Amino acid sequence: MRNIGRRGIHYLQKLNAENVPKDLIEKGQTRVIEASLTLIRERAKLKGELLRALGGAAASTSLLGVPLGHNSSFLQGPAFAPPRIREAIWCGSTNSTTEEGKVLNDPRILTDVGDVPVQEIRDCSVDDDKLMSIISQSVKLVMEEEPLRPLVLGGDHSISFPVVRAVSEKLGGPVDILHLDAHPDIYNEFEGNKYSHASSFARIMEGGYARRLLQVGIRSITNEGREQGKRFGVEQYEMRNFSRDRHFLENLKLGEGAKGVYISIDVDCLDPAFAPGVSHIEPGGLSFRDVLNILHNLQADVVAADVVEFNPQRDTVDGMTAMVAAKLVRELAAKISK
Amino acid sequence: MRNIGRRGIHYLQKLNAENVPKDLIEKGQTRVIEASLTLIRERAKLKGELLRALGGAAASTSLLGVPLGHNSSFLQGPAFAPPRIREAIWCGSTNSTTEEGKVLNDPRILTDVGDVPVQEIRDCSVDDDKLMSIISQSVKLVMEEEPLRPLVLGGDHSISFPVVRAVSEKLGGPVDILHLDAHPDIYNEFEGNKYSHASSFARIMEGGYARRLLQVGIRSITNEGREQGKRFGVEQYEMRNFSRDRHFLENLKLGEGAKGVYISIDVDCLDPAFAPGVSHIEPGGLSFRDVLNILHNLQADVVAADVVEFNPQRDTVDGMTAMVAAKLVRELAAKISK
Amino acid sequence: MRNIGRRGIHYLQKLNAENVPKDLIEKGQTRVIEASLTLIRERAKLKGELLRALGGAAASTSLLGVPLGHNSSFLQGPAFAPPRIREAIWCGSTNSTTEEGKVLNDPRILTDVGDVPVQEIRDCSVDDDKLMSIISQSVKLVMEEEPLRPLVLGGDHSISFPVVRAVSEKLGGPVDILHLDAHPDIYNEFEGNKYSHASSFARIMEGGYARRLLQVGIRSITNEGREQGKRFGVEQYEMRNFSRDRHFLENLKLGEGAKGVYISIDVDCLDPAFAPGVSHIEPGGLSFRDVLNILHNLQADVVAADVVEFNPQRDTVDGMTAMVAAKLVRELAAKISK
Amino acid sequence: MRNIGRRGIHYLQKLNAENVPKDLIEKGQTRVIEASLTLIRERAKLKGELLRALGGAAASTSLLGVPLGHNSSFLQGPAFAPPRIREAIWCGSTNSTTEEGKVLNDPRILTDVGDVPVQEIRDCSVDDDKLMSIISQSVKLVMEEEPLRPLVLGGDHSISFPVVRAVSEKLGGPVDILHLDAHPDIYNEFEGNKYSHASSFARIMEGGYARRLLQVGIRSITNEGREQGKRFGVEQYEMRNFSRDRHFLENLKLGEGAKGVYISIDVDCLDPAFAPGVSHIEPGGLSFRDVLNILHNLQADVVAADVVEFNPQRDTVDGMTAMVAAKLVRELAAKISK
Amino acid sequence: MRNIGRRGIHYLQKLNAENVPKDLIEKGQTRVIEASLTLIRERAKLKGELLRALGGAAASTSLLGVPLGHNSSFLQGPAFAPPRIREAIWCGSTNSTTEEGKVLNDPRILTDVGDVPVQEIRDCSVDDDKLMSIISQSVKLVMEEEPLRPLVLGGDHSISFPVVRAVSEKLGGPVDILHLDAHPDIYNEFEGNKYSHASSFARIMEGGYARRLLQVGIRSITNEGREQGKRFGVEQYEMRNFSRDRHFLENLKLGEGAKGVYISIDVDCLDPAFAPGVSHIEPGGLSFRDVLNILHNLQADVVAADVVEFNPQRDTVDGMTAMVAAKLVRELAAKISK
Amino acid sequence: MRNIGRRGIHYLQKLNAENVPKDLIEKGQTRVIEASLTLIRERAKLKGELLRALGGAAASTSLLGVPLGHNSSFLQGPAFAPPRIREAIWCGSTNSTTEEGKVLNDPRILTDVGDVPVQEIRDCSVDDDKLMSIISQSVKLVMEEEPLRPLVLGGDHSISFPVVRAVSEKLGGPVDILHLDAHPDIYNEFEGNKYSHASSFARIMEGGYARRLLQVGIRSITNEGREQGKRFGVEQYEMRNFSRDRHFLENLKLGEGAKGVYISIDVDCLDPAFAPGVSHIEPGGLSFRDVLNILHNLQADVVAADVVEFNPQRDTVDGMTAMVAAKLVRELAAKISK
Repeated sequence: MRNIGRRGIHYLQKLNAENVPKDLIEKGQTRVIEASLTLIRERAKLKGELLRALGGAAASTSLLGVPLGHNSSFLQGPAFAPPRIREAIWCGSTNSTTEEGKVLNDPRILTDVGDVPVQEIRDCSVDDDKLMSIISQSVKLVMEEEPLRPLVLGGDHSISFPVVRAVSEKLGGPVDILHLDAHPDIYNEFEGNKYSHASSFARIMEGGYARRLLQVGIRSITNEGREQGKRFGVEQYEMRNFSRDRHFLENLKLGEGAKGVYISIDVDCLDPAFAPGVSHIEPGGLSFRDVLNILHNLQADVVAADVVEFNPQRDTVDGMTAMVAAKLVRELAAKISK
Repeated sequence: MRNIGRRGIHYLQKLNAENVPKDLIEKGQTRVIEASLTLIRERAKLKGELLRALGGAAASTSLLGVPLGHNSSFLQGPAFAPPRIREAIWCGSTNSTTEEGKVLNDPRILTDVGDVPVQEIRDCSVDDDKLMSIISQSVKLVMEEEPLRPLVLGGDHSISFPVVRAVSEKLGGPVDILHLDAHPDIYNEFEGNKYSHASSFARIMEGGYARRLLQVGIRSITNEGREQGKRFGVEQYEMRNFSRDRHFLENLKLGEGAKGVYISIDVDCLDPAFAPGVSHIEPGGLSFRDVLNILHNLQADVVAADVVEFNPQRDTVDGMTAMVAAKLVRELAAKISK
Repeated sequence: MRNIGRRGIHYLQKLNAENVPKDLIEKGQTRVIEASLTLIRERAKLKGELLRALGGAAASTSLLGVPLGHNSSFLQGPAFAPPRIREAIWCGSTNSTTEEGKVLNDPRILTDVGDVPVQEIRDCSVDDDKLMSIISQSVKLVMEEEPLRPLVLGGDHSISFPVVRAVSEKLGGPVDILHLDAHPDIYNEFEGNKYSHASSFARIMEGGYARRLLQVGIRSITNEGREQGKRFGVEQYEMRNFSRDRHFLENLKLGEGAKGVYISIDVDCLDPAFAPGVSHIEPGGLSFRDVLNILHNLQADVVAADVVEFNPQRDTVDGMTAMVAAKLVRELAAKISK
Repeated sequence: MRNIGRRGIHYLQKLNAENVPKDLIEKGQTRVIEASLTLIRERAKLKGELLRALGGAAASTSLLGVPLGHNSSFLQGPAFAPPRIREAIWCGSTNSTTEEGKVLNDPRILTDVGDVPVQEIRDCSVDDDKLMSIISQSVKLVMEEEPLRPLVLGGDHSISFPVVRAVSEKLGGPVDILHLDAHPDIYNEFEGNKYSHASSFARIMEGGYARRLLQVGIRSITNEGREQGKRFGVEQYEMRNFSRDRHFLENLKLGEGAKGVYISIDVDCLDPAFAPGVSHIEPGGLSFRDVLNILHNLQADVVAADVVEFNPQRDTVDGMTAMVAAKLVRELAAKISK
Repeated sequence: MRNIGRRGIHYLQKLNAENVPKDLIEKGQTRVIEASLTLIRERAKLKGELLRALGGAAASTSLLGVPLGHNSSFLQGPAFAPPRIREAIWCGSTNSTTEEGKVLNDPRILTDVGDVPVQEIRDCSVDDDKLMSIISQSVKLVMEEEPLRPLVLGGDHSISFPVVRAVSEKLGGPVDILHLDAHPDIYNEFEGNKYSHASSFARIMEGGYARRLLQVGIRSITNEGREQGKRFGVEQYEMRNFSRDRHFLENLKLGEGAKGVYISIDVDCLDPAFAPGVSHIEPGGLSFRDVLNILHNLQADVVAADVVEFNPQRDTVDGMTAMVAAKLVRELAAKISK
Repeated sequence: MRNIGRRGIHYLQKLNAENVPKDLIEKGQTRVIEASLTLIRERAKLKGELLRALGGAAASTSLLGVPLGHNSSFLQGPAFAPPRIREAIWCGSTNSTTEEGKVLNDPRILTDVGDVPVQEIRDCSVDDDKLMSIISQSVKLVMEEEPLRPLVLGGDHSISFPVVRAVSEKLGGPVDILHLDAHPDIYNEFEGNKYSHASSFARIMEGGYARRLLQVGIRSITNEGREQGKRFGVEQYEMRNFSRDRHFLENLKLGEGAKGVYISIDVDCLDPAFAPGVSHIEPGGLSFRDVLNILHNLQADVVAADVVEFNPQRDTVDGMTAMVAAKLVRELAAKISK
């Protein structure tokens, strides 16, 4: 079941080369994209108005789903993640208070602006350059509505590039990035795809969107990965040294002198015992508590974040990984909102 | 995990009663709805333009997803069905030719206009009256674009009411309906909900949208169900008599004198051996071949159709029921398009 | 996980041979058994009193669970079946009306007297002779309360022997038995166990408790099985001839001249496609509709019945076989009650 | 499948209001309850007599199952736990020696008095006040038989209230409680139910049954939960501080000056990686070894204990959580017996 | 997990082009192939000697596994099938008698010569031309030992070509083939692979190895598939006409004037309800009983057979499809042996 | 499904006692065994020749599968492990670099000589004495080809005895063994089987094949297990003391004065959260990172190793434990090769 979203692109491109006026397709695409952005703008606007009317929130987390899976090298399941994570956030089996006492069903802590309609847009034969631009625009639409700050639900890891780009452009300078992952995702390109989920942080560093980049949880890395890390000045913390690095990583202070801090959590930073529902099973990772210790003790003004690479097609029957992704979202929301 | 989509309604209604101007909410809702309909209109328009430019299609199937699950009495999983069905239609494990030889990757046979953004609309506290109206409007938007004919992917069975209403209003008179299901879905209301998935055909008959209604596969029916059937003149074919009725049902001729034929397939018309991924497991149903025999031999001009109640949360690990729903969609598309 | 209930027997027997007064153990056993039977008697009595006070029921089905799995040759899972079947009977996903219109939540159709506490009794080192006698007594306790008729939930198939024995003794003569199964269960003994689930019908025939025995669905039978069948005058209908025998079996008339008809349904009479949750997967069986056709058209005064060999440890995640067993129970209850 | 045990209550209460003499029902209930308690009394008596005859045991663990799930706020699966835990304790895949060398198949270490027949009692329309009293009485029946000490198999966590009440009343004063859980279960009431599994420790503290209450593993707690904690003087150790508290918790000394120590283990104190079969998946919990370290090093006279909230309907196919619950029971039995 | 066996081929071919003497590799390959064939020859010889010493068998089935999955277009799981089928044939849950009374643990009915070591041979960089030749040689080695007749366990369907080629060459003329399958497998080539599992019957017909070819169960066929059928004079029986063709197919007489009859069963000829463990889920297929009716009533001298395309990676947890494949093997063995 | 491979032994032994010349069977066995060993020898030879032609490798890991499961006391699934582990080693979801930077698709790091055909040999009625000898010979055939060092894929733990015996005999003296396991596997015999997987290390110590034996991860051990440990001078590190022993175990230096170091990893040394696919679920084990820390920091010349007791029949649907076993193999290969 690998072909989702591909058919449309295929036949529209074929028609392009035949007897259908190119103009007709392009106008249709433009109208579809406009309508998509309008839907996000209006939802963001409503949430922003609400919060400003309520008052009392300096920063408020708002979820934005980006159901994109086609830049993954192995499985496209992350395209199905956002509805599953939302479902799990509000699952009746837990309450709405975070570990440090914030109440999530207060809209000043958490709202939702819905999904970028990625599959619908791709089905109109929109290419990846334009798609990445639409994602960036969507992130900016959220940030336009004070006091909303975007928490993006992936999707595969390729989405971090257009999201960080938008955050940096909107804030007018680079951010510090805390990146939790089993892989560095910093290869120049993967199988010829510069937007691959294995290359997003190469794109971010090239674009100058990050001042510092800390990678934590790394345990599947090639020699090229380590060389790219050096080339871009990345601080790579590999799992094989985690017992040595633990104290440092559980007491981080980031973002001073930058425009703020961005947190990107690839669910596979966790050991697969804690998060089996991922495309790339890589034993030897962090425990869930390790991740929370790092987050809770981090001193930073978190301006945006993402949770990516949850693959519901690999999850257990009862959706344990969905609950794990949801709790990461919940605790990030508490960290961001104030 | 039962609360999907409910939280928004909850907190928005609560705010309604408090210090937030009512006006602000209503305006936001209106803008969200408008943007939603615009998105569908534009996608349908693009597909219609394409087909007219290509020429040669008198009737062409176009998929419209309605990911609505909250009118189900038991599980809300059908809200997750449309993306899974689409994925299975194009799954690499089978080819794109139907059993009688139509080729699905020809856009004259099958296009797609995407989903009505049901969850996003409900999260803005839009009530069911308005939501049903939005679904009807969406169906009409598809039909407006000659030669598109809508094949709706549910969602639970409550969606058949607004869909049939739209079809009948658009064509200017009642249709004949072939309805395959384990249940008659004709109760006056269910647990106080007139839009319940157990009541959709009561709404259809009251509205005068159907001339004949044939129900096939019925095996879970109460006395009220049988009485409602008589009251509305429904032709109910129960499974306990299927060996007697088989010859008649495998040689149907419908729609003469009506505005055309509508086919509504609840996946649970099949025995759960053939379709385990449903909310209401009711043993003793049709085999997959029984359903295809009925469809292949039916003489009719099929103007629209739906495939509903597939619940991916109950499917097998490898998605067998998704493949079953997808093959129903494929064969229906072949039946509709010409 | 094979040892359920075995430990107790083990250590009590060992103590028996040592320094503990034998008398002490036997008295304790007797008191436990008495208390067990009293619990069933009181529950049956209450249900009987209720129905007589309500009036209007000539025969009323009452469920009796016998969670016994240790006489199975392969897996002991059927010991867990009764609670799962009860759960599925009242599962919110279906209504309480049977296919031919009886309403199950009317206590005149269906009541429940609970389980024989088989594991608790065995844990006190009670042997199988005594255990079988307790099961027989329990069945009689139900039949003592007019108008209750027992529908027994197994358990493995070894329970049919003590149940049929009790029914025949209570009614004062042999019954006709309709036995649906993949196996004849008529071996003289299996691995030295005369109470084996593979030998129950040998015990029944030897005891003279059945006048006619019809076996339907047979498809795993050895030469000994066919010889035993001839020896006891059993009418064996094998699946390899089912297309020839179908008409006869779907129009049976049984019980004239006997004390009534007993129906014993081993869930594995169904093809594993319809009932995967069984210990002995034997492809090539009946469809669920085949079984219902046989039951619905049977002309008989059904005095008691059982549904056995459902193994919840082999069921699908969503409990499809539990729903199948429950529907068999529901339709049998409709057949029995009047 | 939500309605287990509910139907009976429903129709009996309805009949109550109609033409059936109230007296008839009440007498029947009384007889059913009496028979239930007699069954437990007799089983406990037998085990007590046995051990006294054997001699050499000052304290001996005896299992008492309480299959009660209806006071859970989310899923009722724990009602099915006791048979699964028993099965796993004696599973052939492991031996009968505990980590510190006690041999479980010696009855001086471990016996079993069976289950309180909760579902059967509720089916007779017995209300929760009376049911809780029956549970307390059952616990006392075990304690009456020197040297038995009850180790209760839940069931949901609501059962800890009647169990601790019985223990304290029987011993004539309050106990110290070590409570391992993801949740404090100390809310005043939950959805109007004072017997909710989320309120059991509020009932215990109000009743004066505990001197000290230590809660370990907490990671899902609301503000009300923390305030109730303060109000009752509870010592709450939250997971977010576990690395700080670990040394203290792995070297506890409890019960001096009290009537003894009670240990209540909610299986969800463990991270769901270690125990996926629970109703409330709450990532970030204890490892299995963390729990054993706390238990093994605890200095205390443990007078009773419970293991609750294992939900077999959420377990993995091979029953990993059943094995986890069973090992907790095994190690607790070793701790209690002497 | 798609790359099984590929690495070896890769690095040996690469080395071929570098500094390692080509001669060294070729000699090593030859020695490995020789050793593989010797192992099969010796096992066949031992079984043949045994049967001739025992006497009384005119034709005796001998299993030969061919664990080859790399010519599949979608999933390579069938490479793991042979050990799973063997396990299920002797599974303790059923007995060793076939439906018509043959006893399988008599070596005159069934023996086993083991597997062709396909993965080990491919790891030495042997190409598909040579591999197909090794499979043909292995089949002949079995046929050389009177009275052994090969029943081949696949593997994907590409193996039928070298097997039928060997059978026909050994017998000195074409055979009649009964081919049960959802697909015709008669495409000229698939994705450039002439040995594809979708092309095996094109290779067979081109080679003149079959006189008649009957295809039963077909329901996924393109226009090319129908044209290739006509070109080669294949008798294609599609499922959409099965109710019309059933009587004919359940009373076949084949092989007169040919060198005998070959039966090739692709497990996906069955509806996925009966056989979920296949790579290509195609609803609307045969029931298990349909297949047995065809086999039991077939009049023919069956000289060899295969059971292919069972994919254990898609099977249910309890291995239902393994049991289905095993029963097909059991009943085929009974048909062949005499 | 417990009887795999047993049938053959059964009927050949029976024939032995009857009318077939004993001589015929013994000669056939000898030829089959010879052919099996020739196949391994030729594959090892080809790989050795290649590496010597390439040059630059002082020690190179070569996989040898031993699919033997019948000496397990509980489940025989490990017989299916070797192909699943190989598949996972090359799975496309991860790259071919180990954590410390070795590249696995360089044949100087890792080659494969295939499986000992255990099931085929046992089917010819070869007994366990001879089978163990064949395994030892196979290991020696690998070691004969410089610079190959065997990394054996089990199979159950009984295989470690013939493997270590061969290594020690080949090197001419005892080795030091690092043994990671939940169980000591040092019982004198288990259920009368001296080759039981619970006795392999008793056989090894008796044979004088080990100088030091360190057992790490132990948490299921009886008194006999501890006494046997003392008797043989084994250094047993139990999990209940792991926090105390961790520093020592993560800084081991082994093998000085011995012929080298052997590492035996039973997958159940890991907690079942990390490795659910094992026959003996024993909570409270090592984390995957704990194991890697021990391996990475070990100072030793590792001459051979095994990874055993992975049971694919208990694994999760997506094969998490296969990935865990594969990563252990990958990191061991990096440790061995140089």
